[in-house]
Parts: sequence; C-alpha cells; structure tokens
Amino acid sequence: MIIVHHPSEGERYIAALRQALPGQPVIAADKAPDGSDAYFVCWQPPAGFFARFAAPRAVFVLGAGVNHLLERDDLPDDVPLVRLTDAGMAAQMLEYARYGVLTWQRDFDRYRAQQAERRWQVLPAVARSEVRVGVLGLGEMGGHVAAHLAADGYRVSGFSRTARDIRGVRCLSGPGALQALLEGSDVVVNLLPATTDTRQLLNARTLAHLPQGAALVHAGRGSQLDEDALLAALESGQLRFALLDVFADEPLPAGHPLWTHPGVTITPHVAAQTLPADAAAQIAGKLLQLEQGEPVAGLVERARGY
Amino acid sequence: MIIVHHPSEGERYIAALRQALPGQPVIAADKAPDGSDAYFVCWQPPAGFFARFAAPRAVFVLGAGVNHLLERDDLPDDVPLVRLTDAGMAAQMLEYARYGVLTWQRDFDRYRAQQAERRWQVLPAVARSEVRVGVLGLGEMGGHVAAHLAADGYRVSGFSRTARDIRGVRCLSGPGALQALLEGSDVVVNLLPATTDTRQLLNARTLAHLPQGAALVHAGRGSQLDEDALLAALESGQLRFALLDVFADEPLPAGHPLWTHPGVTITPHVAAQTLPADAAAQIAGKLLQLEQGEPVAGLVERARGY
Ligand SMILES: NC(=O)c1ccc[n+]([C@@H]2O[C@H](COP(=O)([O-])OP(=O)(O)OC[C@H]3O[C@@H](n4cnc5c(N)ncnc54)[C@H](OP(=O)(O)O)[C@@H]3O)[C@@H](O)[C@H]2O)c1
Ligand SMILES: NC(=O)c1ccc[n+]([C@@H]2O[C@H](COP(=O)([O-])OP(=O)(O)OC[C@H]3O[C@@H](n4cnc5c(N)ncnc54)[C@H](OP(=O)(O)O)[C@@H]3O)[C@@H](O)[C@H]2O)c1
Repeated sequence: MIIVHHPSEGERYIAALRQALPGQPVIAADKAPDGSDAYFVCWQPPAGFFARFAAPRAVFVLGAGVNHLLERDDLPDDVPLVRLTDAGMAAQMLEYARYGVLTWQRDFDRYRAQQAERRWQVLPAVARSEVRVGVLGLGEMGGHVAAHLAADGYRVSGFSRTARDIRGVRCLSGPGALQALLEGSDVVVNLLPATTDTRQLLNARTLAHLPQGAALVHAGRGSQLDEDALLAALESGQLRFALLDVFADEPLPAGHPLWTHPGVTITPHVAAQTLPADAAAQIAGKLLQLEQGEPVAGLVERARGY
Repeated sequence: MIIVHHPSEGERYIAALRQALPGQPVIAADKAPDGSDAYFVCWQPPAGFFARFAAPRAVFVLGAGVNHLLERDDLPDDVPLVRLTDAGMAAQMLEYARYGVLTWQRDFDRYRAQQAERRWQVLPAVARSEVRVGVLGLGEMGGHVAAHLAADGYRVSGFSRTARDIRGVRCLSGPGALQALLEGSDVVVNLLPATTDTRQLLNARTLAHLPQGAALVHAGRGSQLDEDALLAALESGQLRFALLDVFADEPLPAGHPLWTHPGVTITPHVAAQTLPADAAAQIAGKLLQLEQGEPVAGLVERARGY
C-alpha cells in the first residue's frame, strides 16, 4: 500500500502513482486506516503524522532536501528515506543560477538602479570568461549547475564534502576549500543540503572572504545563512546583491527587513519546484528498485544528514 | 592609410590596428591631413566629417548596424561600407535575450512585484519547452540567439526577409510571416536592422497580434518601435513587460515616460557592446580581404539597407 500526503496536489500524485504501479493500492493519507503498513509519499506532513501508522516501509520525499524529516520525532531511525534525485529540478536550478549570474555579469542590478535615477550610463562589458562563479554543493543540483555554467564559458569552481571531478570545473573539498572558493568568486551559488555541518555556514566571517562587490544566489536552505550578516554585507558593499529563495523562516515574515532591502531579490522557495509527473514517475521506479533489493539513488544517509 | 575616429577608444583602436597591419599607417582623424585618401574606421563621426577627405576607400563601421551612415550626406553612394559581423557581439546578445526570456519563464518580474507588496506566493512552474520565443531578424545576432535558445530547450520561431534554415528553429519569411510569428510568441526578441522596411514595424497593429501577457526584448534599433503603442500595450496588459535597449531618441530623454513605467527595464544601448580587440582584429582581416579582391562578410548592400 502507498499512502500519499500532500496539502494541494494529493489527487494528482495518487493518479500518477496508480498509473505507474498498477498492482499497488494508492490512497490519500486521510482515508488510510490507522495502523496501515505502507510506503509513504509526502513532503512535510504535520507533526505526529506518522504515529498512527505502522513504521513506514519507506518514505519517499517529494523534494531534494530531507532535513525537515530527519528532525521530526515520529519517524524511527531505521525507516528508509528516499529523496528525489533531480526529477526535473536541476534544469530549473540552472535557470535560477543563470539569472543570478547574468544579473551580475551584465549589470542588470546596476542598470535598474540607474533607471530609478533616469541615468543613461554605459558600464564596461564583462565577458563570461571573466566571471568567477563558485558553486557550493556539487550534487544533483550543484553538479548540473556547475557543469552547465562552465560549458556556457564562465570560470566555475565548486565545493563539496568529498572530492568531485566535473569537466571544466575547479573542484575543491576538505579544509580551506570553502575559504578558497569564496575568495575567488564573483557570484556564489549556494546549493548545499541542510545538515549540522552546513548550519550558518554563510556568516559574517565567511562572507568576509568574498571579493568586494560579489553576489550571492542562495537556494539551498535558510538555516545555512546568517541573515543579519547578509544584511551587513549588503550595507557595507561587500555584497552587491543577493538573490534569495530560502529563508530561516518561511514564508518570510511580513516585517522582515529582507523584503525591502534594495539589494535583495526574493522568490518564495521556487528555485526548483517539484514537478508532479516527473516526481511520481521517479518514485514509482525507486519503489520497484527498493522492493527488488536494488540500489536506490537518493537513499538518505542519516549519519551525514543528506 | 587608415584614419580612426572614435570619441573615447581611438587610441586603443589605433594601437590594435597598427599591430595587426604592420605595413599600414594608422592615424587619428584629428591628426589626418585634409584630402587624405584613406580607409576609415569609425562609429558615428560628426556631420560633415568625411567632407574634408578624399572619398573613402572604404568605411569600416565599429558596430553591427549601419543605418546612421546610410542616412548622412557626406558619404558618396559608391563607398564600400563594411560592418562588424558578430565580433563577440552575438554572445552578448544571447546573454541579453536569455535574461529577458528567463524573466518571463521564471516570473522574476512578477516575483519582484510581489516582493514590493511583501507577498509570498508561489506561481506555477513553466518549463522551457512551454515557452514560445519569437526572434525578429536571423542574421549574425538573431541567428545565434535563435539557435542557442532552441538548444536550451525553448520553442523558437524566427523571422527574416529571405528564407533561412536554422536547426531547431521554425523559420518564417514572406507575407504573413510577421503576424504568424507574433501570434505564437510569449517572448519576442527584436534583432532587426534599421531600414525603411523595418521602420515602426512594431506598432499598435502588430503588437496587438501578441498573446495576452507576452514580453518584448527590444535590441534592434529605436526606429522600429512605436513607443506610444508600447506604453499602451503595457497599460492594457497585452504586454507583461518590456526589456528595452534602444530608443527613438538616445540617450533616452530624462522626461520620457519609459523611464518610470513599472513594466519597463531600460539599458543604455549595451545589449551587445563593440569589443575593441575583437573589432580591430576583424577589421584588419576584412581590410586585407578587400585589398585582395576577396569577398568580405558584412559588406553593406545599400539597396536593402543593411
Ligand atoms: N530552493 C529550492 O527550490 C531547492 C530545490 C531543490 C533542492 N534544494 C536544496 O538543494 C540541496 C541540494 O540538493 P541536491 O539534490 O543537489 O543534493 P545532493 O545530490 O545530495 O548534493 C549535495 C551536495 O552537497 C555537498 N555537501 C553536503 N554537505 C556538505 C558539507 N558539509 N560541505 C561541503 N559540501 C557538502 C555534497 O557533497 P558530496 O558530493 O561529497 O556528497 C553534495 O555535493 C537540497 O538539500 C535542498 O536543500 C533547494
Ligand atoms: N543593441 C545593441 O547593442 C545592438 C548590437 C548589435 C546589433 N544591433 C542591431 O541588430 C541588428 C542586426 O544585426 P546583425 O549583425 O544580426 O545583422 P544581419 O546579420 O545583417 O542580420 C539582419 C537580419 O534581419 C533580417 N531582415 C532585414 N530586413 C528585414 C525585413 N524587412 N523583414 C524581415 N527580416 C529582415 C535579415 O534577413 P535576411 O536573413 O533575409 O538577410 C537578417 O536575418 C543591427 O542592424 C543593429 O541594429 C544592436
């Protein structure tokens, strides 16, 4: 049995999973009997949600990040957690990163400021080969973004926990890697998962490594960024602008100073949206692999937190 | 002899041309004797500039558009005019077009409006394959832009005077082609040359062919767009936004309503800047071809106006 929980797209996922897995009963969580012994497909069900069922056979997460599921207390530690691997999100993340990189390279932020003053002033052209992009995290999201921006002609460096090898990308890992990457990046694109190690990784000390006038594209998780330090870096001019998709508190509270800072562009956690058809198809495949004892991409390693 | 006229980068062009063409004397226009029999390298010299010299052997234009040289009265009709062909501009134009297309596809304009109201609201994801891009002009600029946006995964159509064939692009020409292209474009990218045929091509009648909520990226020449009709189309919502690089009057006058319209982004004719090193190298090559009677790419056909 597969139990689906989703606040708005539940019926869509149920229909898609039924079609992909004809043998399996697929039902909405609110119609599932107490004690059901099932697979779960969900994003962020309410606290205590899992308590009324038998321990899940596995939980398939409708997103790339799983931190919110690791933090809850109604999921036993031995339940397999399986996240989405790309499923159409990496292409979206590339678009989001490209928009941020183009804004910096082509001075769209500065021209917008000039427009507000009705000022017609040409700024010097900057070639792609002169723009240093640093990508934090080189997994499904960051690996795709780094490889494609390098193919576009940008000078791309990347940072990951273990050593990676991506064509055209200077890949860094280990002690000193983060500082080296930040020091050599005009635009930093953060695509790390939320773990204890990445908590507040972007703070006053690390942001100070950036060259004067750099930009931040922030689409990992809100917990990774000290928002006060970000505002200070924008004020001092260390950061020229920030394109922010994720926040310590989501939705971003109406009174938050990030909403109105002229150097900040805010999007509501949409850098890479889960696409129901792609996600359901991928989960169906992963479920079959799991049942057949085959390796499953995106099986979360709890010890490392992603 | 080569005479160089440029308001700010003259010395740079002179040095680059001297290096590329060791046999040729290269001098600044203000140091050239009256009556000089020479090649000219320039962008937009002042009215009457050519009168004090012998008829130019050829004029090499430091840009892709030549309309401003065809309109002046101090250049005999039989002087060969040679424009830049790409010379690093097509890559810049692609960046400019990508920024406009990404703004539409990924709703960055709408999220900006929401941010102004501190509104956190997710808009539905739109895939590249759902975005219809129409490129006006399929020459050095438009051909590159159309081919690359198609390779990115967008649904690209293009419009040219004579029939073109570009992989992945629906190429239209002839009667009815403009209307068909506009009717099927979410984002129109205008990269036409300024000629008598393209004058006011984008007007109230033609803009009305666009689907509701389309966007215009306008980087051909100001003469091609009726700016009042544009403002009306933005007011009615027919156009969601316009990214404008060229204007009927440049610099855009301080009192012009385009400066302050919320749906308008203004850049000061920088979509594709002439890159001095690339331009000088290309002109040196074209000059040698011309002297040796070889075909020269970018030789302007006065009858068609580009
Ligand atoms: N805003 C959005 O719409 C959105 C959408 C999708 C995803 N995301 C975020 O993006 C994150 C990444 O997604 P993904 O699919 O790319 O995950 P992934 O495939 O697991 O990749 C994670 C990458 O981060 C690296 N990493 C993890 N901890 C690290 C540390 N302490 N120091 C350095 N590098 C570290 C990993 O290193 P190794 O290569 O050594 O494992 C890996 O390269 C998600 O967790 C989520 O938070 C956001
Ligand atoms: N804003 C900027 O920074 C910037 C920079 C560079 C260029 N530009 C503008 O871009 C223009 C194009 O440059 P380019 O190098 O691509 O020129 P190009 O190589 O000569 O290409 C011109 C294209 O426009 C088409 N065309 C001309 N007249 C037409 C008409 N009446 N109807 C339909 N199609 C027509 C041509 O058709 P055929 O293929 O049949 O010849 C050709 O495809 C320049 O003239 C300039 O105005 C602007």
